Amino acid sequence: MNSNPKDKSSKNKSALSSWRLRIHEIIFEADTRMGKAFDIILIITILLSVIAVMLDSMPEVRRNYGSILLVLEWSFTILFTIEYVLRLITVGRPLKYAGSFYGIVDLLSIIPTYFSLLFPGTQMLVVIRILRVLRIFRVLKLAQYLGEAQMIKQALKASRRKITVFLVTVVTIVIIVGSMMYLIEGEESGFVSIPHSIYWAIVTLTTVGYGDITPITSLGRILSAIVMILGYAIIAVPTGIVTAEMTQTFTKKHVTTQACPQCSMEGHDVDAQFCKYCGSVLNHDSF
Amino acid sequence: MNSNPKDKSSKNKSALSSWRLRIHEIIFEADTRMGKAFDIILIITILLSVIAVMLDSMPEVRRNYGSILLVLEWSFTILFTIEYVLRLITVGRPLKYAGSFYGIVDLLSIIPTYFSLLFPGTQMLVVIRILRVLRIFRVLKLAQYLGEAQMIKQALKASRRKITVFLVTVVTIVIIVGSMMYLIEGEESGFVSIPHSIYWAIVTLTTVGYGDITPITSLGRILSAIVMILGYAIIAVPTGIVTAEMTQTFTKKHVTTQACPQCSMEGHDVDAQFCKYCGSVLNHDSF
Amino acid sequence: MNSNPKDKSSKNKSALSSWRLRIHEIIFEADTRMGKAFDIILIITILLSVIAVMLDSMPEVRRNYGSILLVLEWSFTILFTIEYVLRLITVGRPLKYAGSFYGIVDLLSIIPTYFSLLFPGTQMLVVIRILRVLRIFRVLKLAQYLGEAQMIKQALKASRRKITVFLVTVVTIVIIVGSMMYLIEGEESGFVSIPHSIYWAIVTLTTVGYGDITPITSLGRILSAIVMILGYAIIAVPTGIVTAEMTQTFTKKHVTTQACPQCSMEGHDVDAQFCKYCGSVLNHDSF
Amino acid sequence: MNSNPKDKSSKNKSALSSWRLRIHEIIFEADTRMGKAFDIILIITILLSVIAVMLDSMPEVRRNYGSILLVLEWSFTILFTIEYVLRLITVGRPLKYAGSFYGIVDLLSIIPTYFSLLFPGTQMLVVIRILRVLRIFRVLKLAQYLGEAQMIKQALKASRRKITVFLVTVVTIVIIVGSMMYLIEGEESGFVSIPHSIYWAIVTLTTVGYGDITPITSLGRILSAIVMILGYAIIAVPTGIVTAEMTQTFTKKHVTTQACPQCSMEGHDVDAQFCKYCGSVLNHDSF
Repeated sequence: MNSNPKDKSSKNKSALSSWRLRIHEIIFEADTRMGKAFDIILIITILLSVIAVMLDSMPEVRRNYGSILLVLEWSFTILFTIEYVLRLITVGRPLKYAGSFYGIVDLLSIIPTYFSLLFPGTQMLVVIRILRVLRIFRVLKLAQYLGEAQMIKQALKASRRKITVFLVTVVTIVIIVGSMMYLIEGEESGFVSIPHSIYWAIVTLTTVGYGDITPITSLGRILSAIVMILGYAIIAVPTGIVTAEMTQTFTKKHVTTQACPQCSMEGHDVDAQFCKYCGSVLNHDSF
Repeated sequence: MNSNPKDKSSKNKSALSSWRLRIHEIIFEADTRMGKAFDIILIITILLSVIAVMLDSMPEVRRNYGSILLVLEWSFTILFTIEYVLRLITVGRPLKYAGSFYGIVDLLSIIPTYFSLLFPGTQMLVVIRILRVLRIFRVLKLAQYLGEAQMIKQALKASRRKITVFLVTVVTIVIIVGSMMYLIEGEESGFVSIPHSIYWAIVTLTTVGYGDITPITSLGRILSAIVMILGYAIIAVPTGIVTAEMTQTFTKKHVTTQACPQCSMEGHDVDAQFCKYCGSVLNHDSF
Repeated sequence: MNSNPKDKSSKNKSALSSWRLRIHEIIFEADTRMGKAFDIILIITILLSVIAVMLDSMPEVRRNYGSILLVLEWSFTILFTIEYVLRLITVGRPLKYAGSFYGIVDLLSIIPTYFSLLFPGTQMLVVIRILRVLRIFRVLKLAQYLGEAQMIKQALKASRRKITVFLVTVVTIVIIVGSMMYLIEGEESGFVSIPHSIYWAIVTLTTVGYGDITPITSLGRILSAIVMILGYAIIAVPTGIVTAEMTQTFTKKHVTTQACPQCSMEGHDVDAQFCKYCGSVLNHDSF
Repeated sequence: MNSNPKDKSSKNKSALSSWRLRIHEIIFEADTRMGKAFDIILIITILLSVIAVMLDSMPEVRRNYGSILLVLEWSFTILFTIEYVLRLITVGRPLKYAGSFYGIVDLLSIIPTYFSLLFPGTQMLVVIRILRVLRIFRVLKLAQYLGEAQMIKQALKASRRKITVFLVTVVTIVIIVGSMMYLIEGEESGFVSIPHSIYWAIVTLTTVGYGDITPITSLGRILSAIVMILGYAIIAVPTGIVTAEMTQTFTKKHVTTQACPQCSMEGHDVDAQFCKYCGSVLNHDSF
């Protein structure tokens, strides 16, 4: 997921010829007009190619518009191939790019189509092809969404262990409840084995509730009612964890702990240069 | 959504004759006794007319009470037409009103009925007719709910980008998981195409769980169990974002909109007596 | 819901004879040993009587144990009647009690059984009988849960208007989406009228997802996917509102805004009598 | 759930021979390299044995691989037996360990297999066997997750009463709504008794929505729509409670457990240098 910051500084290297620099700026950056236009075109192309893959999987669409979709697929593949080659040429360290997360995603976006020439009809390629959708994040990364995504990531990272404790607890509950239901309900109502019952327990605890397996005995219904209320209530735990962490992450950005040297009042904003209570100059050295 | 504040000040214009002023105050404002009474009658009329549209769509009701509903529909339409005309006459800038969000909603509330005289049986008109329900918000807007709605809107606006990052992530997960399930499950269990599988993935991740398409293979059930737990846990993310933002918005309740008379900087706390950027005295008269 | 605090002070009135005072204390209060014992017995009796009503509604149980349940029902009714009469006798203002929320619930707990002598077989009485379960709250009210319940109530009250804005928005979405689905899907897939479609929209938006009505057209599925993601995301709004309000309510209890008269440090707890930084006496007059 | 801290100090006792000390450290602690390796092997063994129990419950797996699973089951049982005996020998107070939560879980992990020699085919033993999964928590307890789990537990403990008030309210709603639906819907649509209707009400309020029982009358659908919106909205209450509590717990991270040497009052902030109740100096050495 980590981009290659070295590559960015590489555009300053005199070793790069002027046109390579130009193209690098357009493809990898988003601060020029051309760069932004490229990003927008890229997003649209990615979305269109993903939609084409989806439509291609629909039997009735494939029957009627199969040839059009094939042409589209090849057009997108050629476009993405050109883009991939340009990225490889213009980047400072091609190998590092090729081995990075986005480098691999870029490659996986084009390979399946060429591969399908050799092994036609391999449905497995469809899923690899759809991984193109991950390229959307590259554009998001450049845009102003980066900071926001960072904040979310940071809060989730900080609550990583608490979430793990929560998930281990959920999995334990689900295994024990599943086994109990296997005993209580038996095979008539679909609880044919412990894994099946655990699947039911997950469907119930997460409040998804397909209804493909449902209890029919009184005892089974009482136990499942308890699981439902439990699932309904304990959703509060991950929400509480993430929210508490986010409140801290978001707040930490805005208020300093600094006191005014004149009136000792606190609660100044980070960008405050004068005390809002007495008007004297704040010194930010201590911050 | 934005109201026309100029119109409000227009009631002070001597150009407006006294009765127009009077009616404007009743229709557009809620601070007089007549204005409040008008609002209450309006809400009841809107709700009744929406219920009439709903009942009209029920075959058994239509068969038995069709003529009553037709009379009601025309009564409501005529009432709303009179109201619309009065609004047009009494408002300072009729064109601006007509082009505003509520102006268009007001017009769409009456047009379908007249239209049905020309093209009888156009079912499409039903949905346009039901848009009347949006007029409820006009009354809410005037009432004391305005501030509360503003706070919610502000918090959602502040978390706009974070929510976008979250939604893009959810859509990506759903597309990739959907494609994988299409491969794993195949057509027998309803996963007939990628779009169908994505529909299933959305139904599962959001914990809706219709049960119209459910996995039957072991691998499919394991993957769907992971999606369920994921969907159950990541609901914490938007909740955390909005809550953290709301906690800030509600607490910061006391940020004034006042600009510093010296440096024009904004965002001062209510209790601030000096500008935190340039240290000059703030005057709170305008607040 | 509001209790009658006057009644409590009534036990101090000399007008009440000593045994009435005694019984009043046992029945209405929970601070004596007898009072606590009475509360526990009351809770158990209420729960047993509610379970008896439930069992009585099960055809197979009724067939086999009908006579036992009848005896139990009459026993509970007589016990509750004695309790009701004792409450009426010992309370300071019997009429005020009889007209209060709990007075009415107490009466409704016993009336249906007597009523069933006159009009046998009235199933309507079952629901009235089950309202006994509300009496549980009377006991909770006296116990240490009062403060906690108050805090929840206070937070919900404070967020009353925001929740109203949210609910009006949800209802509007549901009406408009329902009407659109009625047009898109039509009668084959169960969307037979706008009210049916609105019912489906509520089932979907709230992520309940029965699956009794599900879209079958592509356009219908796309719209319902949008509704699901919307429902999944906007749950964040009421949660955010209530959480932000609760954070404020819970926090407000603990920290004063008072500064130490000696060292000007802030952040003292409400129960602090000495400054935690310099040890000088805090004066709480300003609080 | 409470571990036995006395046992830990027991390793310092000279009464323990050196090899017992060594093994105790490996089995009970996680700070040595051997101890960590033991923990990782233990987790893997527990997970494998749980998976073996699950697979054993699947008819098709049992038919084909039954003998392999039997061998595996006995291997795990013998391993766990050796571990259990070692724990008993090396621990300071064997009886206290045997009676503790984890002691009982350890015993329950091995007994069913021996028991199955005496009473073959007792399916009940499967569930006891699966309780092995609880042993996972013992390893978590030792690892760095302890603090995180403590924080979650503390927040849940602090909100214990508020959650109780919430659950009593939910159960009351569910009982009353269930009884009403029993009256409204009747037997045709599956609401055959009050307990069945309550089961439906829980399925609906918690937004699980199996769809095995669904309303078919108009009135029933209106009531269930209200229950759904209620269930959708009141999830905000437990979430709000837990989040508010967690925000406090995580922020207040820095409350010491130290008591004032003068007045014995507790609950001082980490940065407090004077007791806020009596003003005497706090000594932080014990912290």
